[in-house]
Amino acid sequence: MTIRIGILGYGNLGRGVECAVRHNPDMEMAAVFTRRDPKNVEILTDDVPVYRVEDAVSMKDAVDVMILCGGSATDLPVQTPELVRLFNVVDSFDTHAKIPEHFDAVDKAARESGHVGLISVGWDPGMFSLNRLYANAVLPGGQDYTFWGKGVSQGHSDAIRRIKGVRDARQYTIPVDAALDAVRRGAAPQLSVRQKHTRECFVVAEDGADLAAIEKEIVTMPNYFADYDTTVHFISGEELERDHKGIPHGGVVIRTGRTGWKDENSHVIEYSLKLDSNPEFTASVIAAYARAAYRLGREGQTGCKTVFDIAPAYLSVLDGEELRRRLL
Amino acid sequence: MTIRIGILGYGNLGRGVECAVRHNPDMEMAAVFTRRDPKNVEILTDDVPVYRVEDAVSMKDAVDVMILCGGSATDLPVQTPELVRLFNVVDSFDTHAKIPEHFDAVDKAARESGHVGLISVGWDPGMFSLNRLYANAVLPGGQDYTFWGKGVSQGHSDAIRRIKGVRDARQYTIPVDAALDAVRRGAAPQLSVRQKHTRECFVVAEDGADLAAIEKEIVTMPNYFADYDTTVHFISGEELERDHKGIPHGGVVIRTGRTGWKDENSHVIEYSLKLDSNPEFTASVIAAYARAAYRLGREGQTGCKTVFDIAPAYLSVLDGEELRRRLL
Repeated sequence: MTIRIGILGYGNLGRGVECAVRHNPDMEMAAVFTRRDPKNVEILTDDVPVYRVEDAVSMKDAVDVMILCGGSATDLPVQTPELVRLFNVVDSFDTHAKIPEHFDAVDKAARESGHVGLISVGWDPGMFSLNRLYANAVLPGGQDYTFWGKGVSQGHSDAIRRIKGVRDARQYTIPVDAALDAVRRGAAPQLSVRQKHTRECFVVAEDGADLAAIEKEIVTMPNYFADYDTTVHFISGEELERDHKGIPHGGVVIRTGRTGWKDENSHVIEYSLKLDSNPEFTASVIAAYARAAYRLGREGQTGCKTVFDIAPAYLSVLDGEELRRRLL
Repeated sequence: MTIRIGILGYGNLGRGVECAVRHNPDMEMAAVFTRRDPKNVEILTDDVPVYRVEDAVSMKDAVDVMILCGGSATDLPVQTPELVRLFNVVDSFDTHAKIPEHFDAVDKAARESGHVGLISVGWDPGMFSLNRLYANAVLPGGQDYTFWGKGVSQGHSDAIRRIKGVRDARQYTIPVDAALDAVRRGAAPQLSVRQKHTRECFVVAEDGADLAAIEKEIVTMPNYFADYDTTVHFISGEELERDHKGIPHGGVVIRTGRTGWKDENSHVIEYSLKLDSNPEFTASVIAAYARAAYRLGREGQTGCKTVFDIAPAYLSVLDGEELRRRLL
């Protein structure tokens, strides 16, 4: 059985899902849904239709899993509960503080319609969350650390772009090596925001802009930069295009803890990602969980789920016997 | 509800489980079962009885999960199918090639008796297997690498001890840094056995033993050492006791793979463990899965399971809402 995938929202993430479907032989693209005029949306896969979002209902029986590729701020809080009334869905809702609320809304709609809604799938939340949970269960009473980067933060890049005199910008979040080293040594340090990450900004200014004023506005910006050691580089538009076009990211989840009758032994569990393309990797995680959503749906399960609720075997194209033989 | 844990087999692993139970507030020790004379077995926890293995049946209603701490060569193939007729059980069966056979035997007995048998729990098989599965599902078409060490290999240490003229020995398995670096760079190298690990041996010889002969016998030993670059150090019994008493281990699971329409982006997923005590960490993983076995048993599930079949939430003492709020 081929799993027919629908993509709703065709930006970087939607395109990433399209690429991921191509890498999974048990999946195929059924349709792309967009808020733009479908005539103006060109996708990579041949012979796959592009529809308006409003037409999704008419594809109810042609899509097994609908993947929602909108943003967490305004799109997903509306779209996920709405679409789960028609489809099994997967989203990558990543506003950590609002996950409980989102879960409840999706759960209600999913139970009423008899579908599965898998939320907050990606790498953080997602693979990082899984590793936090596993490591917490194995080492109770330990310390958790999550470092992000080196990678591009879209939100911070946007914040710089809104400053007067800035034409374009790219912001990198970078873990502090000394902090990482201390954590890996099992020193269990207490780390402030400033001690964990630095921020590096590449800014293209408009002609004649006040560079000193821009730099000051960046490094003192509350929430975004004020609590960090921030470096600002002014570069040309050509340099930005040439050296900073990619969307790399990654990070590290570490848990340290002690075992033994008198806590005499120390352990370090570390999970790390080094990603050339943040949206394509996120999309690859989503594709694996789309397989799980499809299978859960066929089992008759309903309601909202997260990565915590899915047994790992559901993600793999291999059956239980092959998994045990090849990967256990 | 407190989960009442039984331990069958009181060596390093059994003692590790006893320590792990102490670190998990929702668990308590019910009893230890031994093949030795219980009068000669002193355990760490006060007021917990030590019984003969044969008496396990009489504790049927006093133990929620029985943890089997015997060896994979001869103990577990017999004990796990036998004990799962009486209890929900967890074992750490680690003979990778014989897992399918063990699974079938445990599954049959577990279904007949209505219990859950969780096999091959630990870090490899166990946490490493999980990371292989997750990474394979996320990056289809990539390359898998598992490195072990730096750590003590019990089997290789034993092999050296059997050589004439050797009084005691400790063998460390060490990953080759250059190989690790190439893998982490995403170079996707093909690595021979020799290119991945080296072996370092600390040997206490008997007085007057032929050291050159011992060294030659070690480094040419088929399967164990012949395919590796092996270093042999002769040390005194006091040095062995002073510097090599611990049982550290660890290792790294890496998967690299590419995404994008033309495979243009590269990704590295890495999971690593650095463990002061191999048996205590294994025991800590087992304790978390004992919680899962208990819950699955209460749900009425039966049969043999592996880490692949258990949704992560089952491992945590936190409920779904707290997990989503704190770890997602």
